[in-house]
Amino acid sequence: MTRTTRRTPPQRPRQPTPAGPVDVSALADMVGYRLRRATAAVYLDFIATFRATNIRPTQFSVLTVIGANPGRTQSAIAQALHLKRANFVVLLDELEVQGLIWRAPSMGDRRSYALHLTDKGQAALKMFRRLNRRHESHIARRLGAAGRRQLLELLDRLSV
Amino acid sequence: MTRTTRRTPPQRPRQPTPAGPVDVSALADMVGYRLRRATAAVYLDFIATFRATNIRPTQFSVLTVIGANPGRTQSAIAQALHLKRANFVVLLDELEVQGLIWRAPSMGDRRSYALHLTDKGQAALKMFRRLNRRHESHIARRLGAAGRRQLLELLDRLSV
Repeated sequence: MTRTTRRTPPQRPRQPTPAGPVDVSALADMVGYRLRRATAAVYLDFIATFRATNIRPTQFSVLTVIGANPGRTQSAIAQALHLKRANFVVLLDELEVQGLIWRAPSMGDRRSYALHLTDKGQAALKMFRRLNRRHESHIARRLGAAGRRQLLELLDRLSV
Repeated sequence: MTRTTRRTPPQRPRQPTPAGPVDVSALADMVGYRLRRATAAVYLDFIATFRATNIRPTQFSVLTVIGANPGRTQSAIAQALHLKRANFVVLLDELEVQGLIWRAPSMGDRRSYALHLTDKGQAALKMFRRLNRRHESHIARRLGAAGRRQLLELLDRLSV
């Protein structure tokens, strides 16, 4: 669709504003919309479960992957997590300010840094894993064990 | 987690940077992460299918809901779609510049506007619905008809 100049709105008699619930039934059959709504609901439970921390889901994923892959470069970690470079740099700054990670000059790639958890980061990640198990148990309760397995399998088919 | 001052990284001998695939297996069991990955994959197909337009998924949802609820206020539509007010105002500006919607002063709420599709917006929405059916058919092909029904039912259980 190309941009057009703004048009004068048609002159119609003012109607009283309708009331009552807004009809969103046309969205019910859109897989993308339903995925975004479910993702938002799961996000809210994560934030509630982690409320004593400053940690958001993506930060937790990043700490988990750095913990499992010490010394990998920023760009390797960003790529594995499908994160945009600019967002990822901001996120790493936040984790570094909290004393959870440190960046070392990378031997292999002078333009990048190798990422490590600090001792504090290791200890924090253990605590975050406990909180995450609690979060996942809330989610599993909504789905049932079979439903959870089914959901992960169906999401896999989408993530091609 | 409270903020701490940045610590000097421990002095360790430089290690050669590890190579090979980054291990992300610990993320596989996180429902939120898997939902975000699947949402991103569905988003990419939407964008590819709608590439001849300027329309993103949330804009399409907004046009759909305005079309089904002409004259409802900005705040009613934002709430029904769970969109933040600031983001929603920017999105409406984009749709208005494209000549797809118009805002009328609301009778019921002087601080808000009533939203309508323009004639151009009505015609565009018809075309977008055709593109969306194509997009949904790509998604349905990945899931199968039974899988698609199952997925929507499972997502419902999450969206409490």
